[in-house]
Order: sequence, then C-alpha cells, then structure tokens
Amino acid sequence: MRILGIDPGSKATGYGFIEQCGNRLIHLDNGAIFTHSKDALAVRLQIIYRELCTLIEKYQPEAVAVEQVFMARNPASALKLGHARGIALLAGINAGLPVAEYSALQVKSAVVGYGRAGKNQVQHMTKTLLNLPEIAQEDAADALAVAICHAHSHHLSNKLAAPSQGVRRRQS
Amino acid sequence: MRILGIDPGSKATGYGFIEQCGNRLIHLDNGAIFTHSKDALAVRLQIIYRELCTLIEKYQPEAVAVEQVFMARNPASALKLGHARGIALLAGINAGLPVAEYSALQVKSAVVGYGRAGKNQVQHMTKTLLNLPEIAQEDAADALAVAICHAHSHHLSNKLAAPSQGVRRRQS
Repeated sequence: MRILGIDPGSKATGYGFIEQCGNRLIHLDNGAIFTHSKDALAVRLQIIYRELCTLIEKYQPEAVAVEQVFMARNPASALKLGHARGIALLAGINAGLPVAEYSALQVKSAVVGYGRAGKNQVQHMTKTLLNLPEIAQEDAADALAVAICHAHSHHLSNKLAAPSQGVRRRQS
Repeated sequence: MRILGIDPGSKATGYGFIEQCGNRLIHLDNGAIFTHSKDALAVRLQIIYRELCTLIEKYQPEAVAVEQVFMARNPASALKLGHARGIALLAGINAGLPVAEYSALQVKSAVVGYGRAGKNQVQHMTKTLLNLPEIAQEDAADALAVAICHAHSHHLSNKLAAPSQGVRRRQS
C-alpha cells in the first residue's frame, strides 16, 4: 500500500510518499511545494494543484491522507489555509483515490506517541521511523507523519477486520 | 464580454452568468450548487469543481469574478469557506480564464450603491438590473452581483484606458 501524505499550507504544502509492506514502512520521497506571495491567489492554488497531480502521476499512490487543521487560528489565517487544503483534497479525489483526514492529535500520537509533541519531535521521529538520511523539512516531515498515521490506522483496521483465529469481533 | 460570477460557500455555491454588451447587461443563467453535509468533504469539493467546470464549458465565459469573504467569522467557518473558495478560483484558472476578486463592499457598492446593503437589497437590485422574471435565490443573486461588479469595473477600466478625446490620463 502506497500512501501520499499532505500537509497543506498557504505558503508551503508539504508532501511525503511512503510504502507500507506488512509492518515495514519504506520512504519514497518527500518535499514541499512553495508559492510566491506576490502571485495572485488563483495562480498559487493552480501551482499546488498541478504539482500534486504530477506527483500522484509519478508515484501512483493508492491512498491520500491530509492533515486536519489546528483550529485556534484567526479567521484570516484559517481562510487562507482552507484554500490550500481544498486544493489538496481535490487533487486526491480527482485522481480517483480515497482521501482520509487526520487531526494533528492523531498524527502526533501515531508518530511520536504523544499528541502534544512539537515540530522538532515529529521531524526526528519521521527520520527514525523511515530511516531517512537526514531530517526532512518541517512541512515535508508533517506530510510524512500524516502518511505514517494513515499506514498505522489502515494496518490496525485490517487486523480488526481479519482476526487471525477466526473469531468475529464486534466493532463498536 | 461574458462573465461568470461565483459566490462560494460550504453548503451552497452560487453562480451567475451575464453578458456585457456596451452599457447593457444581459442575464444568461444563475443557480446554486448544493452539497450534502453527510458526504465527505473531498466529495463535496469535487461536486463543486465538476459543476463549475461543466458550466464554464457550457457558457464559455471570458472572465471569472469571485466574491471575497466576510472576515468576521470564526476560524472553523472561515476554514470551511476557504475550501470552497479555493475550488472556485481553481475552476476558473484551470479553464484558462482571468480570475478577479472583489470584496463584499465593492460588490454591494456596484450593485446597490451602498456598501452595507442587505441580502434582500442585493436580490432586488440584481432582478432590476438584469430584468429577471423573478428574484434569484440568495447565493445565485450574490454571484450575479459579483459578475455585475466585474462588468462595471471592466467597463470603467476600458474607459480609462481609452479616453474619448485622446487625452492621456495619468493613472495613479
């Protein structure tokens, strides 16, 4: 299962591709799409959309996971972030892929084991979990983290759906 | 000049097509794209994007005008609205069209002559200015209003660019 994680942002949109082979996670690529604040908003959104479509075409993921947004921002920041986030969700679904959303709490819990972990801890843990040669850029590390979170959730739901001893579990 | 006006929203995205022939404004179509809150966000955004693309294909506008968003909302509302607004801007620019943005103040001033006009006044004035048989739905009326605002701005800038008596005006 190949997963694209996206951390959308108005200035930089982080992306990370990982492959899940059983319990192993393999890093494929990570980076960030930067846009210029001098460009018109529509142009910036088009750049993000096109780059994500090109990356999806190149790496052929089977699922997309997008980070939900920290809500305690002011309305102006939330609106800007919403634009980029809408584009990320659209790029995934327009490629025919399932799109999952995870809160920052879920992502940090999955990667660091602590929901209130800092940016640095997320960067260090993604490096460790994926055997990266160096620490990824901040937005790219967040994108890898949401991809890892999806891999864990997916793995867990698969295990629940197919219990090894043939016992049917009741899911609440 | 054929103009598509869009009033993006998380529940309903209004659209309005008008044609500007000199000083005359001709109404072509208006309506609203509704999405279901039970659907996943990515699905709802895809519906808005596809509908807008289909309408652009049908009416072949030469410009898109999108309303800017009233800022005094809470961050959660602003974020939701940002998703839909990003999709509207992307639909315009991905069709190769120039995309203009106008504040609610500019739109209301252009249509009603008063920047703090209410929704009802905008609905009534779009009916009058475009000779509509009946008052348009609220979101559709807002979309027609932003299209009218663009037509006025465009007309004005054309007049400024080509003064009738051959006098070169200095533009500040």
